Amino acid sequence: MKRNVLIVGAGGVAQVVAHKCAQNNDLFGDLHIASRTLSKCKMIIDSVNDKDAMKTPGVFEAHQVDAMDSGAVAELIRSTDATIVINVGSAFLNMTVMTACIETGAAYIDTAIHEDPAKICETPPWYANYEWKRREECEKAGVTAILGAGFDPGVVNAYAKLAADEYFDRIDEIDIIDINAGSHGQWFATNFDPEINFREFTGEVWSWQGSKWVSNKMFEIGKDWDLPVVGTQRAYMTGHDEVHSISQNLDVPNVRFWMGFGERYITVFTVLKNLGLLSEKPVVTAEGVEVVPLKVVKALLPDPASLAPEYTGKTCIGDIVKGEWQGAAREVFIYNVADHADAYAEVGSQGISYTAGVPAVAAAMLIATGEWDVKKMANIEELPPKPFLKQLDTLGLPTHIRDEKGDRLLSF
Amino acid sequence: MKRNVLIVGAGGVAQVVAHKCAQNNDLFGDLHIASRTLSKCKMIIDSVNDKDAMKTPGVFEAHQVDAMDSGAVAELIRSTDATIVINVGSAFLNMTVMTACIETGAAYIDTAIHEDPAKICETPPWYANYEWKRREECEKAGVTAILGAGFDPGVVNAYAKLAADEYFDRIDEIDIIDINAGSHGQWFATNFDPEINFREFTGEVWSWQGSKWVSNKMFEIGKDWDLPVVGTQRAYMTGHDEVHSISQNLDVPNVRFWMGFGERYITVFTVLKNLGLLSEKPVVTAEGVEVVPLKVVKALLPDPASLAPEYTGKTCIGDIVKGEWQGAAREVFIYNVADHADAYAEVGSQGISYTAGVPAVAAAMLIATGEWDVKKMANIEELPPKPFLKQLDTLGLPTHIRDEKGDRLLSF
Repeated sequence: MKRNVLIVGAGGVAQVVAHKCAQNNDLFGDLHIASRTLSKCKMIIDSVNDKDAMKTPGVFEAHQVDAMDSGAVAELIRSTDATIVINVGSAFLNMTVMTACIETGAAYIDTAIHEDPAKICETPPWYANYEWKRREECEKAGVTAILGAGFDPGVVNAYAKLAADEYFDRIDEIDIIDINAGSHGQWFATNFDPEINFREFTGEVWSWQGSKWVSNKMFEIGKDWDLPVVGTQRAYMTGHDEVHSISQNLDVPNVRFWMGFGERYITVFTVLKNLGLLSEKPVVTAEGVEVVPLKVVKALLPDPASLAPEYTGKTCIGDIVKGEWQGAAREVFIYNVADHADAYAEVGSQGISYTAGVPAVAAAMLIATGEWDVKKMANIEELPPKPFLKQLDTLGLPTHIRDEKGDRLLSF
Repeated sequence: MKRNVLIVGAGGVAQVVAHKCAQNNDLFGDLHIASRTLSKCKMIIDSVNDKDAMKTPGVFEAHQVDAMDSGAVAELIRSTDATIVINVGSAFLNMTVMTACIETGAAYIDTAIHEDPAKICETPPWYANYEWKRREECEKAGVTAILGAGFDPGVVNAYAKLAADEYFDRIDEIDIIDINAGSHGQWFATNFDPEINFREFTGEVWSWQGSKWVSNKMFEIGKDWDLPVVGTQRAYMTGHDEVHSISQNLDVPNVRFWMGFGERYITVFTVLKNLGLLSEKPVVTAEGVEVVPLKVVKALLPDPASLAPEYTGKTCIGDIVKGEWQGAAREVFIYNVADHADAYAEVGSQGISYTAGVPAVAAAMLIATGEWDVKKMANIEELPPKPFLKQLDTLGLPTHIRDEKGDRLLSF
């Protein structure tokens, strides 16, 4: 069966998704991309054509849509005959796009939890705030909805499930480490939308420890991690979607998320936050202009997409898992290393977008093959990890493991 | 002769000027204060009345005026019968207020060079850019115009002139040091209008060395200074009005200005500047709001006037002068130490406003007594320093000297 794909969003991640869908369009059918700004969609299709990325001759069309309007999205799904929707637009769109999928029967994939634009930071239990409330609705409609199918959340959830299936009898701790050891050459820039980026860190930091939610302040808990390829890197505990779903679905008592930050990021973040420049609340200038400070900061920062051509270095993202195996304590690190320049050469995006976008396409491919077409809502760790990791290997994100036997590539 | 005074401006310095004029109103006549915002003028008069500051019963009236309109200022000078105008409004008003004084014959006093709102930073030769172009006009009209009669510029110019008159046969170097060792208790705040404050430091740093202008970057040249009362303090070379006039009028080959900055200030300044948040050029947010980033920063920072009640600690500002005296090398430091809490107790302002405002009133008093009523334009170092320093002593800003004989109070 021909499965037309509709990509929602036209940022850096959407660019990666478009290229990877094109490279595998024999498995899909027609490709469509839609966002608020038609020209951005067209630029992405131009980039696909420039690289001659379509595996077989086929359709790739651009559309304008207000994805906050679920009726408009449903209409577009029908008119494009799409049966797989990959939502890589803003985090504010999940609920409206999901509604359109339930209404039309199309499969739904996203890469991050839904957020309410009016809230600075969503608090745990993250998936239970919005997505999981619609589990029954999906199941009743027979709609496949795969949540958090980026790298983190996404691939790291599959790593956790793989560890539970193959490497442990009992898991005590999962530390998810996300290090970007790359350099964009700018004095300061965020790797994705500054508004979403800063919002992640302006609230409390939540972790799952001793089977309960624990709260800390941002940059309160830092730790140096000795990692393959990128070496020793300092990362800070922060909240992240998958801490919630992994702890619940795999019943692990300690799940923490650690993100690497350089001194520059911490300094800029601290100044902006303390001065009120990360605020979502409008201020009025002496001249009477009402404006949201964070929107001004966003307007001044480099467009994350513009960083890609000069980006060098590597990312290292993975799970350090501790527990018991055949009566003995065990620790493994399951991870991927991606290269910014390689990503740019292949799909015109930097490594952060690449690692987020490729897994969503892998999920779409597994829906197309039927392996993951589960006709209900699922987080990644609820699905068989091996087909996914195998697919990722072929798509450019191989899986490595470091355990008592050393450091090696895993094949599936 | 009764000399009515018109104060232009209603910020922290105007508050000090108002109190000090009130405390000496027997020497003046009626007092008037005018700014764009009438309520701010009224609040200042209320504060004068609250402290029962008027030495003798008299008039103190508030007026609304757009001081960018010289005709409106001239009209107000005539209607108030003012013969001395103390301009302590924004640095953008000098030329229009001076025009009104020339037109009406009133004496003019300011505390800083004129700035063009469209320029980020005026470059040397500062006084020659605007003020000195009108020297002949003032002389022809017989108008006394005293430029830069704050602390720095102002009192430090008088210190330089005193050094030239009494302590040196030849001056080789003058280093003007401005240290605020006080604490406002906020995470970050500027001591005066953030817009003016940051603008001072966003351009190149100009100093007069080897009888020519030398350019450096901000925070490029820092030096620790061992100072009385406040101890060792790090200060950074920066441009300042008086470097120009002192070097020209006293023919000194090396004049440098050093301002003390804490680590916090430097960090915040560096982040804001590098991100473009100190820019005067409007940006447009993704939502289409056009706004000047610096105005947003200003709207978020604490109102400098609000800092006064909690301000503690001292300022130390003065001139380190090096040269020759009776055939031998000599070095002296002529300086004042002011206390933030004392300033607040007396006039309801912090020490930075106090040291800037009191000298302007001392100058007005010397115009009223005739000692400085020179009927032409003059910078402070062109006028006899002793009457000024004597007046400052009685007004709360005594002069100290540290030389080969030790550290002591000077009396005049």
